[in-house]
Parts: sequence; C-alpha cells; structure tokens
Amino acid sequence: MIRASIVGGSGYIGGELIRLLLGHPRVELHQVGSDRLRGKRIDSAHPNLRGHTDLTFTGRADIDACDVLFLAVPHRTSAALLPTLPDADLLVDLSADFRLRDPDTYQRVYGVPHPAAGRIADFAAGLPELGRDALRTATRVAVPGCMATAAILALAPLAPLVEPEVTVDARTGSSGSGGSDGFADSHPQRSGALRVFAPAGHRHEAEIAQATGLSVRMTGTGVAAVRGVQVVCHATPRAPLSEVDVRRAYRAAYDGEPFVRVVAHRRGAFRYPDPKILLGSNHCDVGFAVADGRVTAIAALDNLVKGGAGAAVQCLNVRRGWPETLGLEFPGLHPC
Amino acid sequence: MIRASIVGGSGYIGGELIRLLLGHPRVELHQVGSDRLRGKRIDSAHPNLRGHTDLTFTGRADIDACDVLFLAVPHRTSAALLPTLPDADLLVDLSADFRLRDPDTYQRVYGVPHPAAGRIADFAAGLPELGRDALRTATRVAVPGCMATAAILALAPLAPLVEPEVTVDARTGSSGSGGSDGFADSHPQRSGALRVFAPAGHRHEAEIAQATGLSVRMTGTGVAAVRGVQVVCHATPRAPLSEVDVRRAYRAAYDGEPFVRVVAHRRGAFRYPDPKILLGSNHCDVGFAVADGRVTAIAALDNLVKGGAGAAVQCLNVRRGWPETLGLEFPGLHPC
Amino acid sequence: MIRASIVGGSGYIGGELIRLLLGHPRVELHQVGSDRLRGKRIDSAHPNLRGHTDLTFTGRADIDACDVLFLAVPHRTSAALLPTLPDADLLVDLSADFRLRDPDTYQRVYGVPHPAAGRIADFAAGLPELGRDALRTATRVAVPGCMATAAILALAPLAPLVEPEVTVDARTGSSGSGGSDGFADSHPQRSGALRVFAPAGHRHEAEIAQATGLSVRMTGTGVAAVRGVQVVCHATPRAPLSEVDVRRAYRAAYDGEPFVRVVAHRRGAFRYPDPKILLGSNHCDVGFAVADGRVTAIAALDNLVKGGAGAAVQCLNVRRGWPETLGLEFPGLHPC
Amino acid sequence: MIRASIVGGSGYIGGELIRLLLGHPRVELHQVGSDRLRGKRIDSAHPNLRGHTDLTFTGRADIDACDVLFLAVPHRTSAALLPTLPDADLLVDLSADFRLRDPDTYQRVYGVPHPAAGRIADFAAGLPELGRDALRTATRVAVPGCMATAAILALAPLAPLVEPEVTVDARTGSSGSGGSDGFADSHPQRSGALRVFAPAGHRHEAEIAQATGLSVRMTGTGVAAVRGVQVVCHATPRAPLSEVDVRRAYRAAYDGEPFVRVVAHRRGAFRYPDPKILLGSNHCDVGFAVADGRVTAIAALDNLVKGGAGAAVQCLNVRRGWPETLGLEFPGLHPC
Repeated sequence: MIRASIVGGSGYIGGELIRLLLGHPRVELHQVGSDRLRGKRIDSAHPNLRGHTDLTFTGRADIDACDVLFLAVPHRTSAALLPTLPDADLLVDLSADFRLRDPDTYQRVYGVPHPAAGRIADFAAGLPELGRDALRTATRVAVPGCMATAAILALAPLAPLVEPEVTVDARTGSSGSGGSDGFADSHPQRSGALRVFAPAGHRHEAEIAQATGLSVRMTGTGVAAVRGVQVVCHATPRAPLSEVDVRRAYRAAYDGEPFVRVVAHRRGAFRYPDPKILLGSNHCDVGFAVADGRVTAIAALDNLVKGGAGAAVQCLNVRRGWPETLGLEFPGLHPC
Repeated sequence: MIRASIVGGSGYIGGELIRLLLGHPRVELHQVGSDRLRGKRIDSAHPNLRGHTDLTFTGRADIDACDVLFLAVPHRTSAALLPTLPDADLLVDLSADFRLRDPDTYQRVYGVPHPAAGRIADFAAGLPELGRDALRTATRVAVPGCMATAAILALAPLAPLVEPEVTVDARTGSSGSGGSDGFADSHPQRSGALRVFAPAGHRHEAEIAQATGLSVRMTGTGVAAVRGVQVVCHATPRAPLSEVDVRRAYRAAYDGEPFVRVVAHRRGAFRYPDPKILLGSNHCDVGFAVADGRVTAIAALDNLVKGGAGAAVQCLNVRRGWPETLGLEFPGLHPC
Repeated sequence: MIRASIVGGSGYIGGELIRLLLGHPRVELHQVGSDRLRGKRIDSAHPNLRGHTDLTFTGRADIDACDVLFLAVPHRTSAALLPTLPDADLLVDLSADFRLRDPDTYQRVYGVPHPAAGRIADFAAGLPELGRDALRTATRVAVPGCMATAAILALAPLAPLVEPEVTVDARTGSSGSGGSDGFADSHPQRSGALRVFAPAGHRHEAEIAQATGLSVRMTGTGVAAVRGVQVVCHATPRAPLSEVDVRRAYRAAYDGEPFVRVVAHRRGAFRYPDPKILLGSNHCDVGFAVADGRVTAIAALDNLVKGGAGAAVQCLNVRRGWPETLGLEFPGLHPC
Repeated sequence: MIRASIVGGSGYIGGELIRLLLGHPRVELHQVGSDRLRGKRIDSAHPNLRGHTDLTFTGRADIDACDVLFLAVPHRTSAALLPTLPDADLLVDLSADFRLRDPDTYQRVYGVPHPAAGRIADFAAGLPELGRDALRTATRVAVPGCMATAAILALAPLAPLVEPEVTVDARTGSSGSGGSDGFADSHPQRSGALRVFAPAGHRHEAEIAQATGLSVRMTGTGVAAVRGVQVVCHATPRAPLSEVDVRRAYRAAYDGEPFVRVVAHRRGAFRYPDPKILLGSNHCDVGFAVADGRVTAIAALDNLVKGGAGAAVQCLNVRRGWPETLGLEFPGLHPC
C-alpha cells in the first residue's frame, strides 16, 4: 500500500480522484486538501461517497509528505503551489500548467508568460498510450485536457496518413468547467442547450498539435449532458485511404491498450463512440468512417475519468509497474 | 391599446410577461424596469425576444404612470415598493406578499410580520376560475403561487366531497426558483435530479387552505425539467364516490373555463396531466382517478405562464372585459 | 379565409402544421388526413391541442378539394400520392421527393430512380429567403429538409467568399426522424446520447449544394434534445476575410428578413445560435466567427417549425401575398 | 470460483447482471441465455461491456447446470420455465412470479391464477435487510420489485410506529419497464415527462404490504431520468413522534447494513435521498422528515442495481457466506 494525497479535493475532478483511490487495492488515501472545506467531511461535498470514507478535508498547508500527490486545482494554481508542496515520489498535475512543452506556446495560448517555465521539463505527459516509457520513471506528470485526450487518441494513428490541417468538432458536458455555478451554468440556462462556446479556436488545440504534429482547428460546443466529451475530427488523406487502412492504423496503435477500444460496428445505436456508455469508465472509444476522399475520426470519453482522474490513476499504475487497469475496471453503465 | 409596464423584468417571470405583452393585441408594452440592467436591451436578458422588441430596461424610479403595472419582484420587495409605485389603474403583483388574506397566517408561514398588513384587503386573488367577479372591478391583484394554482384547481371542486386532510405531492422544474444561480442549481447538480426540497410543509399550503378550506400537507420535489409544475393530490371521500361523481364535480366547476382542461382519457401517454405538453401555454390540465375509497387528483401547468405571467395577463383580460384568452392562445408544443 | 387540409396529420410535422393552421387568422383548417387514425380525434394524437379543435382524422381518400393542401407524409409517399390528390390552388410538400431539381442527383442520393421525375419542375423551393419571387406564383412547393434549411441559410451569403469545400457539423434532436419508435429511439437509448449517425455523408448535402453551389461534407449527430437543429459550418475564405466582411454579407442577405436573425453578441450564453431558445418559433438564427483564416458559420432552428411546418406556412403566406409572419409570431420560450 | 449463468440476458436487468458478475472476484460467468440473440456477442446488446467479455449469447435450451442461475425474464416466464431449467444450487428469480407468498393475493393483483402456486414456498425473499437468515440456506430466491424494495426499506422500521394506512408516491426512470420500445417510450414522448401511470394502485403495493404489514396506496410517476427509483411515503404516527424517534428506529434497523444509508443532513442538494447519486450503486438511501404530526419517509435506489441485478448478487453473497459487498463496491457517480 502506498500513501496518496490530493490537493484540491472539493471539485468534480477531485471527487472522482477520491472515488477511484478509495477503490484502489494498493493505495491508501491519506489526505484530501481543501482550504475552503477544511475540517468538513469529504462526503459533504461528494455525497456518493457516504459510507465509503470518514475522511475530512485538510487545509492545504497541512498536507504531509506522501508517495503520490495529485493536484486537482485550477489552472495557474498548480504552478504557484509547486514550491510549497510536500515531498512526494510522484506528483500528478491535472491542471493545464505543465501540458505544453514550449513556454512560448503557453504564452500565446494562455496570454500570460509561463509561471514556472524552468519546471516544464520535469513533467512527463500523462497519456500512457502515447508515452508509456517516459511515465515508468517519471516523478512529475501533467495529465492532458479532456478534449485533448480524446482528439489525440483519435488523431495520432492517422497523423502520418493525412494532410496536416484537421478540423475537430468537440462536444462537452457541463461538468467540464469544473463545477462553475454562474448564471450561464444554471440548470435552466444549460439544460437542453447546444452552446457553441469556442467557434474558432480552443486552448486544447496546442496540446493536440504538440502530440500529433497536426494543425488543429477546434470548435467547442457544450451539450446537455453532465459528463462526457466527444470529438469528431475531419481530415483529408494524403493518398487514397480505405477503411481497411484506417482500421489497420488504429489496430497497430491500440492493440493491447487496456483502455482504448476501437469501435467498428456496422449497426446499432452505439456503432460510433458515444460518451453515454462511458460514464465512470476509463475507456476512450475511437471510431471512424471513410468516404469520398475524407476520413472522419470520432472519439468519446468521460471527461472526469479518462479525461481527468482516471488518467491520473492510470499514470500512477504505469509508474508503479502495477497492472494498468488496477482500480479502473468499471466498464460504464448501460443504459444511463 | 392600453399602456403596460413591468417592475422586475429581468427574471424568468418578467421575461414571460414581456413575451406575452408584446404579443397582446390591445397592450402596448411601455416600460420594463430593472435597476441592475438599466439601459441594456431587453433581449440581452431574454434572447428569445431578439427581433421582437427594441426596448431597453428602465431604472425602477423612472417607471411612468400607466394603465397596468405588473410587479415581478422577489417576495417582500412588492410590499416595500408599494408606496413608491407610479399610478396605475391596475396593479398585478406576482410575489407572495398579498396572497394570504390573514396577516397572522402570513407571519406563521413566512416567519416575519406582514410588511403592509393594512393593504392586504386591497388585493383580489388572481385566480379567475375561483373569483372572476372580484377581478372585474379590482385595482390590485395578487397572483397565487404556481404550485398553489395547480393544487387549488385540482382540489377546489372536490373540497365539498372529501375529508379535509389532503396530501399533495408537488413537483417543479428548475425555473421555479426564479433563476437562482447557486451551486445547487448548477446544471451538473440539478440535471436528472429528484430533489425533495420540502418533505413536510411548503409555504403554498396556506394559500391552498385559504382557497379550498382543506388542510393540505405538501411535499415538494424538484425534477429534471426546466418548466412545469405537477401536483398529485390524495384525498379520502366523505361518502363513497365514483369516477362519474368526480367528473361531474369537475365539469360543474370548469365547463366553459377557457384554460382549465379536464383530462379524462382511457389510454395514451398523456391521459393524466403532464406539464410536458403545456410549455408556454396558459392551460391548467386537471385529471383524476378513483379507486378503493380514495380519490387522486392531478393537475399540471407551466409555472411561468398559468403559474405566473399568463395568469397575470388573464387577470388583466378579465379586468378589462376583454376576451379572456387574448394574447394567451398558444397551446403548447408537442413533442418538446 | 381560405380552406387548408393536410395529408399525413398524425406525425410530428403534421401536428405542428395543425397547431399553426388553427392559429392562423386567415386559414380554416378543413381536413386532416390519416388512414391509420381515421375517425379519431386529432387531439388524441396531439394532446397539446385539446380544447383547440374538435376535428377528427379523415381517411386519405376523403380529402376534399381545398385552397391549400399540405403533404406531411414519408419520403416517396408524396410522389406516389401525387396523381390521386384532390385539387388545390397550392400544394406544399414536406417530404424529400421534390427538393432536388436533378433526377440523377436524386437517384445518386436516394439509391432509386426518381418516382415522378416529370413533375419536379412544377415545384418551387420552399425557402422564401432564397427564392421569394418564385413562391409568389408557385402552385407546388417543396420545403427543404431541416438541416438543409439551417445550412443553406448559414452558407448562402458566404458562398461567393469562400472556397467551395465546406464541412458541416449538424446536430439534431430526436423528433427529427418523424417519431420513430424503434429500440434505438427509446428513451433509455436516446437520453443523453451523442449519436453520430452520419459520420461522412448525409442526404441533405445535395440540397445544400444545389442551393449554394458549395461542395458540402456533412456529419450528423443526434443530441439529447427533442427538437432543434444546429449546424456548425467550417469554410476557408478565398481571400482574407474579416468579421466585418462576414457581417456585411449576412446583413446584405438578411436585412428585412422576418425570420432570419443575425446573432452577433460579444457575450452571454446565447451569443451563438442555439435551438434551445427557438422551440416553437419560425426563426432561424445565424451567427459566425472568423479566426486564423477560417470562417465558422452557425445556424439553429426548430426542425419542426422553420425546418418543417413553419416554413410551409411561411410559403403559404408568401404565395397569398399576406404578411409573411401571419400565424408565425411565436418567439420561442426562455428558459425551456 | 463458482459458475454462474443467466437466463434472459438481453434486457437491462440482464445486462447489469452480466456487468456485476464479470466484475465479481469469486464468480465465473459461464453462460448468458437469449433465444433472440443466440450466437451474437454479448457486447452487441450491452456496448459498455466491449473489451470486458468475448462471450456470446446461448440458446435457452443450451444452458448447462451451474452453481447459480439468475432468471431475468419477463413476468410469468419464470414460472413457465421453472420445470425446464438446468440444475443449480441456487436459483435467483428477478421476475414478479414468486414474490407474493399468497397465491390468492397474486391472483387479485395480476388477474390470473398463480402459474405455479405449489412452488412459492420454495422461494426466500431476496431482501437481505429484512431476512438475511432465510437467505443463508435458500435454494430459491425471489428478488422484490424495484419500487417495492425502496418502499419496504423506507417503511419497515416505521411500521410499528405509524397508522397502517400509508401513501407512497413512487417515481421511476424509463429503464424500469425493461426496455420497452413502443411509441410512448420513444425519446420524444418520454423526455422531460412527468407521466403519472398508476394514479391509484400499483402492483408493488401487495409486496410492500406483505413485507411491512402496512396498507399501502401507491401512485407511480415516470420521470425524465433513465435510471432510478424514489419513493416518498406519507404516514401518520400512532403516538407523537420526534425526529429523534424516527432516526433511532432507522438506526436500529440499519446500523451495520452495508447498503442502506440513513441520510440525515441539514442542508445541501442531497440532504434527502436522490437516485441521481446512486447510478450503478447497490445502495438504498433512506431519509425522513417529521412535522405537524406526520412523518415522511423517502428512499432512493438504482432500479437496475439495488432494485434488480445488484440485489440478486447481494443475495448470492449472503447465500455463499461471502462478504456481502463483494462485486458491489461501486459507490455511484457524482455528478452524473
């Protein structure tokens, strides 16, 4: 058993981390930090966990040294906290602060200079499917954004086969914002909405470009679900491409991957990836269609699991040399 | 054409009032008050009205004398504003301030002394189905609460026939709170919820008791919809009662009523009242079942229309001697 | 008053036609045909219309001659019925049968020879915004598909400015299929879904190409809503294009149009077109963004109104020389 | 490891059984029967299980002898199949056929004579919380209905304290019907609905009466969710009752119960039981309120888990003397 703690445990990603770590057979959840909820029971913020833990929230300054420390804090907070964190063999950051390798790109995307550029090189990318070896020895991990993970897993195997300009239509549920409670995110405003919030340009584009070498144009739409991300990627083959070619590329990339399922069915409501059947699961489903000289790649995941807390636990498993699916076996619910 | 203005036009009830008055053939919408949005376009708060009006919000103090003034402000604000309001032939208040005739009951229900007890008697009840005559000459009208309206219309015809103790199970969509934007009303928290918020005792009980003479126990549950109220009322007949007796009671009460539909179908998904088919409509559907010595009465309405803005316009129509359905003809959408 | 009848009144488009025609001040709804429901009350299929009509369904063979006849029947049924229909000054067809001008295109898209190629030329396109003059004298009108209408209105003003290859991401609610009741469309299967049903290639592409001259690649996704279509169109400008240029193109195209609203707001949950505020309305909202040498055009509408029954009534109004908004004034609900 | 098989594996309860048994550490899922889907992959019907099993459906006649056999077939099919089933140490039936002990009650409720009255006595009630001992040695188990389970767990501890007449307001998601695909259950018809389907009298009343001795009047409403049951029970205390009394009764009944959580919070969106946080979980949450001489008891569960497949697995665990939570540890998702 190793000792795990979380900084930033009051939000949705934090809640999912707690859930997953409580169910992990080789992890003892030691402390969960939240200055705002310090001293309150964890299940007061995460009512699904009633009966599963008696832990209370710890003030951030009281987090002890531990084996693995997860940071589930807002963007820019991770970098600011870095010098103050307790010792940990492994630090897994779920914010955007250390995802981009190039500080200039960071500045272009986020509009401010990188707050800790000298530390970027310490972080490995938290996407085992594209860089498992680096994770085996990493001491710092930066988990990619939820849409970025979906788009990267959809596009990486195709990157050598398509023209570099790719269009990505990304859809996300309302939990993606981390639990905002403003007017626009109130139930009456958001229920049933199809809210285009990023018609031309989304911050995750740079992450996708970094991982795939492609030049991505992403449109983001908030849909009526609470959880889930789906990306529909439109690419143009460099040379004529058949369904068989595309399937072969995905199989080569993902055969043996425990969490990427290549979905290729002829019929049925779920013949293309749909986050509806992935809630709570660490799977990323990938599918595709080829027609008239175009390839459409589709991916879906649960933004709080494979797009967040689950990916973080998967990285821990890789780093420790444990079976990669440990604590991540939940397959999702159908129907739901 | 008469001149109508609204105090409190930025909320959901206010928005519906604007929509209805813009479409009313004998009303000119003169001013819409909101201190917070003063000077901004009305369609910035109510985007469905783009292209339907160029009005901007007026500061509350700048509201002119007019023919009819609607108050769509929070509870207790109406009473506080009363001395400062401009002259109007008719004042229609949508808050709870003047619904209860007895200031002691008000104090028991709301926990504070009535803020303007001496003015209560000026107000007629804004429920034409139960008191049309008083409305014909009224100068002040207090529109009942949305759940109260549904429960009163379901129960009033049965009151002489049943034991006075009645249980009411009320369900309401998320727009009922007037557009709260706290965490509990954020989309991730509210979507798909069945939130019992008033397990034993709801403020509308006193209104229902006042109108029907029954002693009501109401449970309130927030459901996943945005709009709509449904009440399921459980009563015990004083003497054996058949379906025919109940139907007769409803027919006697509501034959000729333009907005109350007695729903009595043998089959189909909508054989009992469901707010799903009432969105935007001023109808209140009423239905019932009799079995094993019990009668169950069911009513449904759109909380922002028949449970708010539509009822207010209906009262105006009655007061003016206009056809009661003027500006209220929209039948609701199916499916939706 | 003119006399209107409907063939195919039991489906969702038929129901909306009935609703709109009952509320139309210059139309008397004469007969509504349905062989399956012959003799049953119309409100048994369309419960929102209880109290608004006592009509019953008429067998198809008993439909009389009338002034305007609407066909709301499945694809291919319109063409088959054509020789058997009663006389009508104006026939408005809502099926796909007479939308494509070229029978060869029809055969390529639908996989069968056109069933009545010789009659195609009789039909004017039921999209007043692009061909009002032809409608003024038309005797036969073919209303475009719901996604086609949205995409055409988004793209037509841009067509001269952009490269011909355009990608369209179309999203549609569950009422789009006309009310299918198979397993895949059951509530448990469809609720919360993001169902890519046409990843590469949709039948409406040919309609859009015909109207705009563009070469369209459309992806279709079924979203969790009941009503509503949204299209997000990605185009590449031929020459550098600014937001001002695009706005000017839209203004030039749509200034004075009663139903197309060019949405161009800086902020707010509805700064881009969202069908959520359009339920029941005949509006088509159009918006756009320009960035990094790309233009994204977005349109939204209610698939059963502007994408169906409302467009049909709008065509009738044009044909008769009536105010175009007659019977179509409903602005949509907010929130909903 | 024991060998488990399922008869009736194509429906929603069957799918959940497969999911739970695949994740159970002491069970090998041997065969899943479905005549309709014979030979097809299990994940073709339950797409969430892709990658979790390569099993295919087996014809019913080909089900082998096994250690435990689950029947997830429609009502009356269980009784009909009984003589033909293969040997099994334990048979767990999820239909209604053997829930009622008294064949006369069965006939009254279901309108037909009991199809196998002589076998009723072989079955133990599949509700460990009320009869764990009988389950330890049972060879036949009948799992109660989903609403019955919720109502029984809410009411049993109160039964000695309240008058026997109790009103139960039951709400259920759309998966409750077992996956019906008729028109009324299509997404457009069911989305957002509040469909009272049993205004006065529901079949589960007899089960609740049998387990609690109370005389129950249940109203059933279909709500917009896919999963979940909630019951709100209204009872009258025999003698004055305080919140402390009620809490004590629940604690006495459920302290130490692994799956019943007594929810008693002062505030928060989940201070009363809500199925929203229970999806996929085997918990039944129970809460209550006492006011003005009335007690309201509320319970919530996932109809496909604690109200079906999870309860069946829990019974297996009890029967085998295994830890009762084995394979049932999933706590539910928040938010969802």
